[in-house]
Amino acid sequence: MIDSTIGEKKLTHELARLVLSSQPEKDQAVMDAARAGVIDFLATSFAARDDEGVGKLWKIIESEGGHQVVPIIGQKRKASFLQAALLHGFIGHALDYDDVHSDVRGHPSTVILPALLSVAATSGLSGERFLASYIVGVEVMARLGLAIGAEHYNKGWHNTATLGTIAAGVAASYAEGHSIEQIKKVIGFAATQASGLRVQFGTETKPLHAGIAAQAGLLAVSLAEVNFGGTAYALDGKTGFFSVYGDLHQAERALLLDWGNPWKFADPGLWFKIYPFCSAAHHAADAARSLMTHHDILANEIEQVQIIFPPKGDSALVVHQPQTGEQGRFSVEYVVALALNGYTLTLNNFTAAPISEEINAFLPRIYRKYDEKIEPVPHAIPKGRFTIVEVEMKDGYVYRKRVDRPRGAPGNTLSQEDIHQKLEATVAFEQGRASELIKVVSKLKSEEDMKQLLTLL
Amino acid sequence: MIDSTIGEKKLTHELARLVLSSQPEKDQAVMDAARAGVIDFLATSFAARDDEGVGKLWKIIESEGGHQVVPIIGQKRKASFLQAALLHGFIGHALDYDDVHSDVRGHPSTVILPALLSVAATSGLSGERFLASYIVGVEVMARLGLAIGAEHYNKGWHNTATLGTIAAGVAASYAEGHSIEQIKKVIGFAATQASGLRVQFGTETKPLHAGIAAQAGLLAVSLAEVNFGGTAYALDGKTGFFSVYGDLHQAERALLLDWGNPWKFADPGLWFKIYPFCSAAHHAADAARSLMTHHDILANEIEQVQIIFPPKGDSALVVHQPQTGEQGRFSVEYVVALALNGYTLTLNNFTAAPISEEINAFLPRIYRKYDEKIEPVPHAIPKGRFTIVEVEMKDGYVYRKRVDRPRGAPGNTLSQEDIHQKLEATVAFEQGRASELIKVVSKLKSEEDMKQLLTLL
Repeated sequence: MIDSTIGEKKLTHELARLVLSSQPEKDQAVMDAARAGVIDFLATSFAARDDEGVGKLWKIIESEGGHQVVPIIGQKRKASFLQAALLHGFIGHALDYDDVHSDVRGHPSTVILPALLSVAATSGLSGERFLASYIVGVEVMARLGLAIGAEHYNKGWHNTATLGTIAAGVAASYAEGHSIEQIKKVIGFAATQASGLRVQFGTETKPLHAGIAAQAGLLAVSLAEVNFGGTAYALDGKTGFFSVYGDLHQAERALLLDWGNPWKFADPGLWFKIYPFCSAAHHAADAARSLMTHHDILANEIEQVQIIFPPKGDSALVVHQPQTGEQGRFSVEYVVALALNGYTLTLNNFTAAPISEEINAFLPRIYRKYDEKIEPVPHAIPKGRFTIVEVEMKDGYVYRKRVDRPRGAPGNTLSQEDIHQKLEATVAFEQGRASELIKVVSKLKSEEDMKQLLTLL
Repeated sequence: MIDSTIGEKKLTHELARLVLSSQPEKDQAVMDAARAGVIDFLATSFAARDDEGVGKLWKIIESEGGHQVVPIIGQKRKASFLQAALLHGFIGHALDYDDVHSDVRGHPSTVILPALLSVAATSGLSGERFLASYIVGVEVMARLGLAIGAEHYNKGWHNTATLGTIAAGVAASYAEGHSIEQIKKVIGFAATQASGLRVQFGTETKPLHAGIAAQAGLLAVSLAEVNFGGTAYALDGKTGFFSVYGDLHQAERALLLDWGNPWKFADPGLWFKIYPFCSAAHHAADAARSLMTHHDILANEIEQVQIIFPPKGDSALVVHQPQTGEQGRFSVEYVVALALNGYTLTLNNFTAAPISEEINAFLPRIYRKYDEKIEPVPHAIPKGRFTIVEVEMKDGYVYRKRVDRPRGAPGNTLSQEDIHQKLEATVAFEQGRASELIKVVSKLKSEEDMKQLLTLL
């Protein structure tokens, strides 16, 4: 009937069919990986519980009103179905301490889990279905990332937001047990809301993108549930999602191949962050820390520091001279300056407070360089990436460290123990709460388990 | 500080500065034009008051809950600040009976007025400020349209939605009396939410785009009011709005030139619709009706009908074989078939009901053609457009009518009387209500006037 979407019109349909046929709960290893993902997400969210932006969003939500049905992590308060997704998305991403996925070129859990927490709080979702929906959501988001290609991000889109809207919607649609026709429409309702510009990086709006995406995904689900009219072919054709935001031909090659075999959740898997800043600076952080551990480097004897990337390897690191620790989350200069001056790379150095004078004075000694001649190694994470930190001392001596796969990345991943410790550190404000959360998530299966988890948020 | 947005970084700032300096209330003619715009918007909204989609949105809103503070046109109910914008945007655009603006390549009032109605209902906005904000919003949206160029729409974006998000946000920001710093941030909060794909044309989601845009614009305003962090340069630079959605260089040439001189609201002005379907089919409708008025054409003696456009002149008309009258709003074949078969081009033929068998049987006789050799006339509306309807009779005789500027378009605009009649027809269900509305809008000036208008919705 609608002739503008000529072509095969099969991507939307096939994606919905594969989603509906998914049974990740049969794969115990990926279910355990999902449990680790939930714990890491809780850790990053609890860490941001007092973030100033959260208070600002509460003001807007109070002014709107709404049925308070979804408990909000670390807030001892509830919000409505849609508002909770906005809040949780922001909270999970506020510190840039949440997981990333290299296929996504962005953050999957902080859009998918907020949508699923709202579903869980308002319907009888089992713990098993919650985890399975999370795995399906990450599968969708990773495949959208592969299908849309590097150019999408390079052009200026924030993949967490654009792809996350669809992934959050589909994950929630799967959780709700929607039909294939509903899933196809959810894809369309979500795709037509996909937005988020990288020009907001370095501001509070960057993490808000995750919340907006999660909320838009849930609006898509609500629209399908009231049988709202929408296209069942949103990804297809000359004016569909991939044609407008990416490249339809590339999408046709990459979107559906080998669905769930293995699950993208486990392979390449989520990258859990050990540092509370943008993952693109983790290589440099590991390199600088390694130099400090292995050599007697005194900051005041450093002449200059070169940080060497492959071309565009630093495009997420938009800040060169941060004024605050918050801005420093997107500044490789700040991260390296901290490490070389003996500061810890922990949350307390990435707050809204002004950066220290010592660090500020050190920043002009740091330079970025790009070297297209250096070959990335095959196991580099993300693909094609490396970072070299080269410290030139005043006496002419040069220390050099290259990192291709930082700590936390797939293949160099955090242990379960590391992730549990991350949660314990961020909920240290309440004795015993971390171990209760870990206990519930570790056995998460029934509807009762899910309810118990919600009461612990 | 944020170095990804290199370049002059002046578009966002200058746009905000011009918005803040605007005083359209000093121009009585444009204020009267705005009054006509409000009446036309009320007429189209009342006409959609029983639309099925409205009921579906109410279900979602009921499930969310919220402070009921904004009266909804024709609904005898209220919704929250943000929800009201979603509803009003949908209601205003549901029948595609609302105004269009050729610079926008879309519908300005149905995104701008919903945002302003929410502001008016929750703050002490005067009637004069309401109208002035509407004029400023249309100025912003028309200039965004000129700045982003034809390629934006051609690629698959729905301008009403993408540009409307920013225009609605800025109009509301101006209405709230924001500072220049706030307006700049509102532009950014809105730009990063800009979305809406033409692949949804012909479905209920198309008019929903207007509601989503209005709501997103108001979220942008709310974020500025709680002092949320965001970029002040969203339109600028290599990853800013124009670079991602359009062409920054073209934007730099077109966005700011001769602001308000004259106001785009008045020149070229809004196009008020006499027919309840997509404006791209109005030329053909006028042509077909003219042929029927001037000749004795019997439908069963027609061999075939050619509808001739300039290349891409029919790109909004995505439906060739509608199943329902609703789909027929985007089908030039349906519109022409109705006219040639003696049906009226009124609301009753554009509902969700299946189209008549007679019309369905006639559709295969209609063909579209494109002729790049025909020169559009200088006064064509929109620029470069014409439509020729050529009716070939079974006896070989050919009737031909060309329309370059349809009834309702700027230069061939509806009279005040026509617009008042449109409102009277759509609120005929309640004796005297249309004249009350017309009376209030005609004198709209004080805060009291504005309150009175809100009570009449």
